[in-house]
Formats: sequence, C-alpha cells, structure tokens
Amino acid sequence: MQKFVNDPSKVVDEMLEAYVKVHADLVSTTENERVIKYKHAPVKGKVGIVTGGGSGHKPAFVGYVGRNMVDAVACGEIFSSPPAQMFYDAIKAADGGKGVALLYGNYAGDNMNVAMAMDEAEDEGIEVKKVVANDDVPSAPKGEEAKRRGVAGEILMWKVGGAKAAMGASLDEVIAAAQKAIKNTRSMGVGLAPCAIPEVGHPNFTIEEGKMEVGIGHHGEPGIEVCDLEPSAKIAQRFCNVILPDLPFESGDEVVVLISGLGSTPVMEQYIVFNDIEKILKERGIKIYLSYVGNYFTSLEMAGVTCTLMKLDEELKECMDYECDSVGMQQFQR
Amino acid sequence: MQKFVNDPSKVVDEMLEAYVKVHADLVSTTENERVIKYKHAPVKGKVGIVTGGGSGHKPAFVGYVGRNMVDAVACGEIFSSPPAQMFYDAIKAADGGKGVALLYGNYAGDNMNVAMAMDEAEDEGIEVKKVVANDDVPSAPKGEEAKRRGVAGEILMWKVGGAKAAMGASLDEVIAAAQKAIKNTRSMGVGLAPCAIPEVGHPNFTIEEGKMEVGIGHHGEPGIEVCDLEPSAKIAQRFCNVILPDLPFESGDEVVVLISGLGSTPVMEQYIVFNDIEKILKERGIKIYLSYVGNYFTSLEMAGVTCTLMKLDEELKECMDYECDSVGMQQFQR
Repeated sequence: MQKFVNDPSKVVDEMLEAYVKVHADLVSTTENERVIKYKHAPVKGKVGIVTGGGSGHKPAFVGYVGRNMVDAVACGEIFSSPPAQMFYDAIKAADGGKGVALLYGNYAGDNMNVAMAMDEAEDEGIEVKKVVANDDVPSAPKGEEAKRRGVAGEILMWKVGGAKAAMGASLDEVIAAAQKAIKNTRSMGVGLAPCAIPEVGHPNFTIEEGKMEVGIGHHGEPGIEVCDLEPSAKIAQRFCNVILPDLPFESGDEVVVLISGLGSTPVMEQYIVFNDIEKILKERGIKIYLSYVGNYFTSLEMAGVTCTLMKLDEELKECMDYECDSVGMQQFQR
Repeated sequence: MQKFVNDPSKVVDEMLEAYVKVHADLVSTTENERVIKYKHAPVKGKVGIVTGGGSGHKPAFVGYVGRNMVDAVACGEIFSSPPAQMFYDAIKAADGGKGVALLYGNYAGDNMNVAMAMDEAEDEGIEVKKVVANDDVPSAPKGEEAKRRGVAGEILMWKVGGAKAAMGASLDEVIAAAQKAIKNTRSMGVGLAPCAIPEVGHPNFTIEEGKMEVGIGHHGEPGIEVCDLEPSAKIAQRFCNVILPDLPFESGDEVVVLISGLGSTPVMEQYIVFNDIEKILKERGIKIYLSYVGNYFTSLEMAGVTCTLMKLDEELKECMDYECDSVGMQQFQR
C-alpha cells in the first residue's frame, strides 16, 4: 500500500485537522471534530445546508462547505456513513432558525443515520427536510430510480440548494430546488483500477489490466459490465448511450456537464473524455451551458472517470450562476 | 496502460481542444494551437508573462494562464520541451508592448528552446527577459544551485510575476520580483509509484511496493535515496531536513507552504503530510502565512507529493495576496 499515512485508523482525523488549518478563512471545526462547518455558520435567518457521508472522496464532502454552499458536513470513516449523532451535530451547526435541508446520497447507512438524526432534531424543535441523491443510472434500472446511488451529481444538488438558501428561500423552496436539481441529473462511472482503504491495506476489488468496469460505483460497487478497455471516444459513447435516454436529454436542452476523475486518472485524460462527450452532445443538439472537468468527487486513488449531466431550466441556471466560495467549487464559477 | 485516450500521439492536442472549450471564459487558443493565451492577452501596456514546458503536469502549465497570472503558455509533448517556435509564438501572444517576462523551469531542452525564441523575439524588437526556476533542492547540491531543476515552486514564481505585472511594474521590476520569489523557494519530492507516458505505454522507471524514492523529479528523475516507505511524519521530517537548512528558513520567517500531489496520491494523504509539516514548522518558530494542499503540479499518475516553501517579505506577500483568476490558482486566493 503506497500511501502517506501515520496510523491508518486516524487518516480522517489527521486530514480534517490539517483541512481546518489550511482553510481557516472558510471553515472551522465544531465541538464534534468530525463535523466541519462554514466559518460563519449558522447563518441567522438562512436555511442551513447539511450533508455528510463516508470520507475518501475528496474534495467531497468537506470541500463543498463554504459560502452559499454547504453549511456543515458530517465526515464518516473512509467509505462509511457517519453515525446519526454526527449528522445531528451537523444539523445543529447549520441551524440558523429557518430550518435545515439535508442533502445527501442514497446509501443504506446514510439513510438510516439521517433518519435517526432527523428524529432527534425534530424532538429539539429543528425543522429538517431531506433530498436523497440518486443520480447514478447504472446502479438500478429505469423505474427503480429510488434504488439508485448518489454520486457526483450531489455536487450540483449542493450548489443549487446552497444558492437557493443564500437567495433567502424558505426550507420548502430550497428542498424543491435541490430535488429538481437531482431529478434532472444523471451520472455514470467507468473504472480502470481499484483503490485501497488505508486500514485494509489492499484493494477490495480488482480490475484487470486491459479491462474496464462500466458503471462502477464510488466505492468499487460492481458495474453493469466488465469489458476490454476502449478508446475514450467509445467510452464517451457508452456514457451518452446510458445517460441521455434515461432522463431523457433531448435536442434543445441546455445542460451542465461534470466530468470528475475518480482519483488517479490524470486530469489530461478527463479533458480527452470531455472532448469526446462534447462532440456527441453537439451532434444531438444538446447545448452545454457550463462544463467542469477535474477531480470533483473521487474514490481514493481509484482510476476512472464519472460523467454527470444536469438538464437546466431558468431557476437551475440562476442557482448555478450564483456566486459561491468553497474549496471544491471555486472552479464552478463562470 | 489503464488510460482514457484515443490516439496516444494526440493526447496533448485533444486535451487542449477540450481545455479551451471548458475554460472559454478565461483562455483562448492562438494561431499556434499549442499556444494557449489569457483571453484578453496581450494586455496593452502590461508586461506579458510567458511560460511553457512539457505537458503531463496538469494543472501546470496551461492551468496557470489567466487574469493577473500567465498570459501565454507553450505546451510541449508529454514531458518534452516545446520547440523554440512555440515559445516564440507564446511571446508574441503575450506581448503588450511593455516587454515579456519568460518564467520557466530549469531543463536542458527548455533552456535551449527559450534561448532561440528570445533571439528571434529580439530580432523582432520584443524585449524579453527570463527567470529560470531551480527550486528542487535534491537535484543538485548546495553551491550548485544553477543545476537544480524547477518544480512546483514555479507556480509561486508565476503568481508573484503575474501580480507584479498586473500592478503596472516595468519588465525589470517583474523580473526582479519573480527572481526573488524563486530565490526564496525550495522544493522536494517523494515518489511512491511511477507513471506511464501514453505513447510509451508503460512506466519508464519503477518504485517497488514498500519503497519510496526520496528527492524524485517531476519526470521520474532519480532522487537521492530509495528506502523503505515511512510514516507521513517521518517523511515530513525528511522534507524539512532537506529544505529548511538549504535557504535557510529560520525562526521568525513567514512562509508559503505548497503541498502538491504528483497525480495519483489522494488529496487526503496530502493533507496528512501537510499536518506533519505544519507541526515541525511550528516547533521551529516558522510561521505559515499561506498554505495550499492539492494537485497543483502533477506528473501524470505518479504517486507522491512535493513540498515547497517560499520565504516571504512584504513585496512577496503583496504579490501572493493580489487577486488572480486561473484554473489552477483559484485556490490560491485568501
């Protein structure tokens, strides 16, 4: 395991200890050291935005905490849900008296812990509503969208929800906008090499040299097909063949395109994949309003990329264009 | 070779084709498609900032083109110097009539091609002066600093030079500031796994599992020692033992700390290394003025990190704090 670590059981704690030092202008720690908040949160009279999830996805999740973005995040162990108490502490850290929108991804552990945290918050008189991201198309067939996992589309959900809250919207309005964002979003991943959790010390899945895993999940969840590695243009075609008909994205639509590396795939290759996807969208009359290429949502040192598309309307455009400031999202500004 | 590519000989062209699409608000291509410029360059009456080098170091070099940063960049093949004509075309693209500062790293091919490009520019009546970055301590012993390679410290040189030019300084003033920046900067890398050039298809060097290469260069140049992989805290000590006495950095100094991943090392691990370095600096009474952790200067999918320190004075602080806008440097704003 070729890693820079001290005690493998302490990687999240040491990372967060450093994170709040490096980004002290933007974030701060809380009484619960696994809950990181926007420095000025809770913002009085603003709907609080909370997320959380397993660590190992840098800049997700903590990197999206900031101004007009996520107010507080619960940081679990590597690839493991934060416990309910941690989600609850994040809710408290974000609560500015106007309610809290809990925007997270569809994983069993997160669903369970969020539900308990929401119950606890309700008992304390904090109004919390949730949106569960399920943008990963290959993780369940059409018609069973509620079973799909949340992946890089969560970033767009946070961006939209964060902007809406910053505009002064009510909790219901923030929830509706974030729900629309994820409802209009579809993602898919292709993996080329696995990653290893520091405490485990070796990859818990394999991808053979010369092969690729189509539809891989953010924790190495099996995809829909293992096949010979293809040129970027063919992989781009696969992305479009799965993602476009599912919403569907159609001629005349305006979209956000987000290509994220999964960790060890050079950003150069991510641009090459984007280049091929852009050509297909152009052919199909789908207009790119905003595009992002880089390591926005990773899985430790997994090799691979994810492709995320969000269909825009005027409200979503306004939210995407709204200024924000976070470590992961500065490149999202036009 | 687990890579997203089409024709391996076309990776730089396809990457740049995509890059100018994604960042059309900030950069544009030129008549020479391997020269990318700040959208509004040449800026009349401002000293132009030019750099260039081999590709494969994303976001370097093209990612530092932008407002109050680099005006034009010459993008060579992977790990290969751009030819003289490309450097010359970059000079022309950046020349706003007040001279051009060519700020690049110390590699034989770049030195040769820059010299030819500068001769050609002089013949055309464009005043060009250069600063050659040599921040990589392990690449030559003290006393032979002129033999040292330029690595991630180049980013700080571009930031300082770009800010100085934006403030309206003369060419000599820009050169003096950029020269001071790199003179005050020291870097070192540690590699944990190699990378493969797409056209070659396999790594051209090896690092065995369980080992690390101390002092590795940005293209896999051999370091000063291959030894057993150590915990992050010990590696941080090695960084400090090499970097601090070389300038020297001393108690009371204020510094910029830049930890960059080399490609496939997760950003989480980079924060852990930062955490350990920060503790050592604190013990030694060295104050961190600004700190940056992330993939700022990579080497394809090499595993490893580089540590860069720059000692500040008031002029350098003012330049580091000056607003700028580039894909690689947005995180550099306070």
